[in-house]
Amino acid sequence: MTPAWFHNHKPVEMVPIDDRGFQYGDGLFETIAIRAGRPRLWQFHMERLATGCERLGIRMPAEQDLREQVDTALDASDAGAGSGTIKIVLSAGTGPRGYARGKDIEARIFVGVFPSNVLSRSAYEEGVDVMVCETRLAGPSVLAGLKTLNRLEQVFGRSECVAANAFEGLMVDADERVICGTMSNVFIVSGHTVITPALTRCGVAGVMRRLVLETFAASDKAVVIRDVALAELRQSDEVFLSNSQFGVVPVRRCEDRQWSPGDSTRECQRLLAAQGVPECT
Amino acid sequence: MTPAWFHNHKPVEMVPIDDRGFQYGDGLFETIAIRAGRPRLWQFHMERLATGCERLGIRMPAEQDLREQVDTALDASDAGAGSGTIKIVLSAGTGPRGYARGKDIEARIFVGVFPSNVLSRSAYEEGVDVMVCETRLAGPSVLAGLKTLNRLEQVFGRSECVAANAFEGLMVDADERVICGTMSNVFIVSGHTVITPALTRCGVAGVMRRLVLETFAASDKAVVIRDVALAELRQSDEVFLSNSQFGVVPVRRCEDRQWSPGDSTRECQRLLAAQGVPECT
Repeated sequence: MTPAWFHNHKPVEMVPIDDRGFQYGDGLFETIAIRAGRPRLWQFHMERLATGCERLGIRMPAEQDLREQVDTALDASDAGAGSGTIKIVLSAGTGPRGYARGKDIEARIFVGVFPSNVLSRSAYEEGVDVMVCETRLAGPSVLAGLKTLNRLEQVFGRSECVAANAFEGLMVDADERVICGTMSNVFIVSGHTVITPALTRCGVAGVMRRLVLETFAASDKAVVIRDVALAELRQSDEVFLSNSQFGVVPVRRCEDRQWSPGDSTRECQRLLAAQGVPECT
Repeated sequence: MTPAWFHNHKPVEMVPIDDRGFQYGDGLFETIAIRAGRPRLWQFHMERLATGCERLGIRMPAEQDLREQVDTALDASDAGAGSGTIKIVLSAGTGPRGYARGKDIEARIFVGVFPSNVLSRSAYEEGVDVMVCETRLAGPSVLAGLKTLNRLEQVFGRSECVAANAFEGLMVDADERVICGTMSNVFIVSGHTVITPALTRCGVAGVMRRLVLETFAASDKAVVIRDVALAELRQSDEVFLSNSQFGVVPVRRCEDRQWSPGDSTRECQRLLAAQGVPECT
């Protein structure tokens, strides 16, 4: 598939240079998995986008408009019938120069369509290797939980992963609390208890994290959301990662600590498979 | 003057949608005052840009190339002979999708030229009103001191200023330490001691702040750089702000606290006037 971008149903290759997304990272984005030609977890993506709009003071576009623009991008690609990735960028549009937005700014919607990111079977079965990034997430941040266009910390973290050839990098804050991965959320298992870091200070609240939380809750195994020290992660019985594209994968190694995929991780993968994320099993 | 943007000496109105500046705020910028047709504090801007490039892992363009692109923008505008504002945006260019940059990315240089921001005489003489923003700066941040394209905290802070009709908003961190203004650096005076907040955790290290520091140091009145609690600012004898465009202005009011411009502020304005910032006096 050839990657392509669309704006108001027309192919685009450029954005206005005075777009606040370019000038200040003033905007939000969502990266949505396409499966069988349809956006997966659409409602979760729309709800996170709406939360971001509210926090950034951008008017949330009509969901129908977003969906139609996504469908245009899908129809123009061969993802229309199969798998792919949709990226929606919602920028704060154009305003006067300076940090302050003008009155009545109009957000701009851009929709990109890309090939699907597929993980190997062995990643799901045996697990992936992660590292701990040197890059610390700053917090408490007014942007905690949101997926904004201010992503330099993740760019830094991802560069570390590439240099170390790690599948993912765990990002911790200045107090060595694990927050999330550069592109994933993190779960640890202690005995039969599944725990995921609170994202009140920083980090991105992933839609697949939400699906894991809601799916476990519905199975009477509520996930505990609280601070997780890096030392606790190292001592936990299982670790797994969630991401909108790949679902859930076990972690088999973090530096000198190794794990075998455990019962809770397998249970999570099975539960997700029944929730429209079959690639996990 | 009509605002205009240039890239490689040609007028541009658009940037590639896959530019990492737009997708992730992966880049840096400088806003440079033009006086008598020439960029003011050019070397300071170049040194900060080089520091940012080093931290972001972007290759710093040749200074001569940047200067020539700035000159092209100036020549094409009537700022060529007078006052204006140049904005250089240096983005990390285009790479593969995802936070990780590709190998051998090539940074893109964009140069915008705008009318000069001019303050009223009364601002310099009587001072300006500031507020304390509710938006807290996150820290410690890997981006401390840098002027990156990740500027949402400043966008939030500036929105507060506009809503409150304040000239500037002071930004504090979670521990109520004053860091800087949304578009300026802050100095307080206690007796005869001039103090400015350390920017090791967050904030932007402005070029005019550097000029103030170096100018005071050369006059045997070194400015103390350390943490400044908001409570200490409220109790200080003088407060003033620095910014590359306007130089230095006194603060006359912060919420219920009022000041008259004091001796150290006036001395700073006089010293700067002798250093190529005549608008201060």
